[in-house]
Amino acid sequence: MAVRQTLALDAMGGDHGPGVVIPAALRFLDQRPHCQLILVGRQEAIAEHLPSSAARDERIRIHPASQEVAMDELPSKALRGKKDSSMRVAIDLVKRGEADACVSAGNTGALMATARFVLKTLPHIDRPAIITAIPALKGQTHMLDLGANVDCTAEHLFQFAVMGSELVRAVQGLPMPRVGLLNIGAEEIKGNDQVRAAHELLAGSSLNYVGYVEGDDVYLGDVDVVVSDGFVGNVALKASEGVAKLIAQMLKRRFRRNWLSRLSGLAALPVLRGFRAEVDPRRYNGASLLGLRGIVIKSHGGADALAFEHALRIADQEVRSGVIARIEREVEVHLGEARALKLQAAEVPA
Amino acid sequence: MAVRQTLALDAMGGDHGPGVVIPAALRFLDQRPHCQLILVGRQEAIAEHLPSSAARDERIRIHPASQEVAMDELPSKALRGKKDSSMRVAIDLVKRGEADACVSAGNTGALMATARFVLKTLPHIDRPAIITAIPALKGQTHMLDLGANVDCTAEHLFQFAVMGSELVRAVQGLPMPRVGLLNIGAEEIKGNDQVRAAHELLAGSSLNYVGYVEGDDVYLGDVDVVVSDGFVGNVALKASEGVAKLIAQMLKRRFRRNWLSRLSGLAALPVLRGFRAEVDPRRYNGASLLGLRGIVIKSHGGADALAFEHALRIADQEVRSGVIARIEREVEVHLGEARALKLQAAEVPA
Repeated sequence: MAVRQTLALDAMGGDHGPGVVIPAALRFLDQRPHCQLILVGRQEAIAEHLPSSAARDERIRIHPASQEVAMDELPSKALRGKKDSSMRVAIDLVKRGEADACVSAGNTGALMATARFVLKTLPHIDRPAIITAIPALKGQTHMLDLGANVDCTAEHLFQFAVMGSELVRAVQGLPMPRVGLLNIGAEEIKGNDQVRAAHELLAGSSLNYVGYVEGDDVYLGDVDVVVSDGFVGNVALKASEGVAKLIAQMLKRRFRRNWLSRLSGLAALPVLRGFRAEVDPRRYNGASLLGLRGIVIKSHGGADALAFEHALRIADQEVRSGVIARIEREVEVHLGEARALKLQAAEVPA
Repeated sequence: MAVRQTLALDAMGGDHGPGVVIPAALRFLDQRPHCQLILVGRQEAIAEHLPSSAARDERIRIHPASQEVAMDELPSKALRGKKDSSMRVAIDLVKRGEADACVSAGNTGALMATARFVLKTLPHIDRPAIITAIPALKGQTHMLDLGANVDCTAEHLFQFAVMGSELVRAVQGLPMPRVGLLNIGAEEIKGNDQVRAAHELLAGSSLNYVGYVEGDDVYLGDVDVVVSDGFVGNVALKASEGVAKLIAQMLKRRFRRNWLSRLSGLAALPVLRGFRAEVDPRRYNGASLLGLRGIVIKSHGGADALAFEHALRIADQEVRSGVIARIEREVEVHLGEARALKLQAAEVPA
């Protein structure tokens, strides 16, 4: 029998727990015969949502965990007090090598804190970052960090760039992903000190660095990786979600205004449905916690089965592409470059 | 004869110069008989776009300026070398009391630098900020700073909040505008030091401060003023514009896919047109440079006549509501509060 990829699922995480995780797991297994899943959580709760036919599937295993991390629980509290939580046990399985990746829809802060504590960061990586794909006019763009790191030095931003570039190279098969650094436009006041220093590091590296990009460039698809600190990245992503929802609401309101607009909406239904599917955020669900010694995927807390299934696919893709080993190797190469650049700069008298 | 409000227009600014500014000016005057305009720039260039009937209108005056600030010119260079630019002269007219406000579609950085140099900031205001209205599910939201200040202390953010709140009170007539502070979600890593300190100042003030808001809250309309530093605000606004354009493009592509989708698009045309008008960014064109001893409105560089006209309306509105004097008074009140809060904090032993 071929060696199977194994994903550990935090079955209790997210707003809906096993009610979403189990149906997503079953659909995922239908399409990925090479995978096997470990469902981590309270056995009764899982069994309740698991059809007996699926319970006999040798590719599904239940791993008990007696506790759950609440969605609003303080990360530090979850880390100290919930050592048998479904989230923690799923990460432990990755640490012990029993699973190749872990997927959770639980509390982001707790997931990051626990994953960092259990798995540790890769050599030379100071801080893990959160990355996700977002739709663009041409293809898609990956953006990081999305909220794990509020204040970042130039070195942190540089590390994010290296990790993001290698992730995209691995999972999208792009030989030289174009990397952009998020900044604001006004020429003389361009960026803060950290961003300008990161720009120097990136410009001197062998990454395919294309320079500064602005907030609207993210959605053009002219770059493959957009780097920013976690505060800026999080606000940009959330603001984008806000606008998308606003537009959807306005469009809906207009089509529902009177019988004539309703009729025309009916005529346009196939187009509107296709459009909705295209921009469906569920198709982009699943953010990677990058920089750890293991693959951890965060699903949106409110994800439904379709969205959670997409997060599982991302985990599968990262396992198959061997992204962790690749990032580890690339970080080694590029940090050597950054060090050389810094030495060089130090040798030039100011 | 009643005293007329006078707006000074940088006729050469923006991507299109007098070709856009003059038609916008004429349309504006048609609707606002109480206003008069000073068109600042090269006389021949202005005359070329000014119909002879309009040239005889006593409410229009041309004020010569021999230079122009390029859209990509360094602010410091424009400030030093372009003392007879249309931008500078228009601001000078405000300084000398010959105009009540100035409107320019020119280079943002140069406009801010020049306005700050010529007009100076209001007492107790360290830095001017850029504010604009953006559409929301319920009404609209004002957001600042949008790019003038990259690094902000808690005190700067507090000053922005006071200015933004008073602007909304003045121009929208809301008695107690709800003020939110832009932050990111994760509980324990909530915000950076400046944001947390600004939160304390705001919570202790008599502003109608509703607490932290996230990027997507901006578009709900549950707050009237959203405060952030200029880096975050600029990225959030540009990212939002990027998403809106992406969605518009995707929708267009889908309706143009085949004859059936084109036909359904035709049926839905009245609804789609109404929708487009509703989200039309031109209806939100015009950002205020807040915190100066004079009203300066920045129009988008690529604005067409309709958009520029909207920026003129904003200038008119701010003049009529006496926003500068109101902000000056409010700043005095609220900075007293902030000082008291700081003294109080200093008295408590750590």
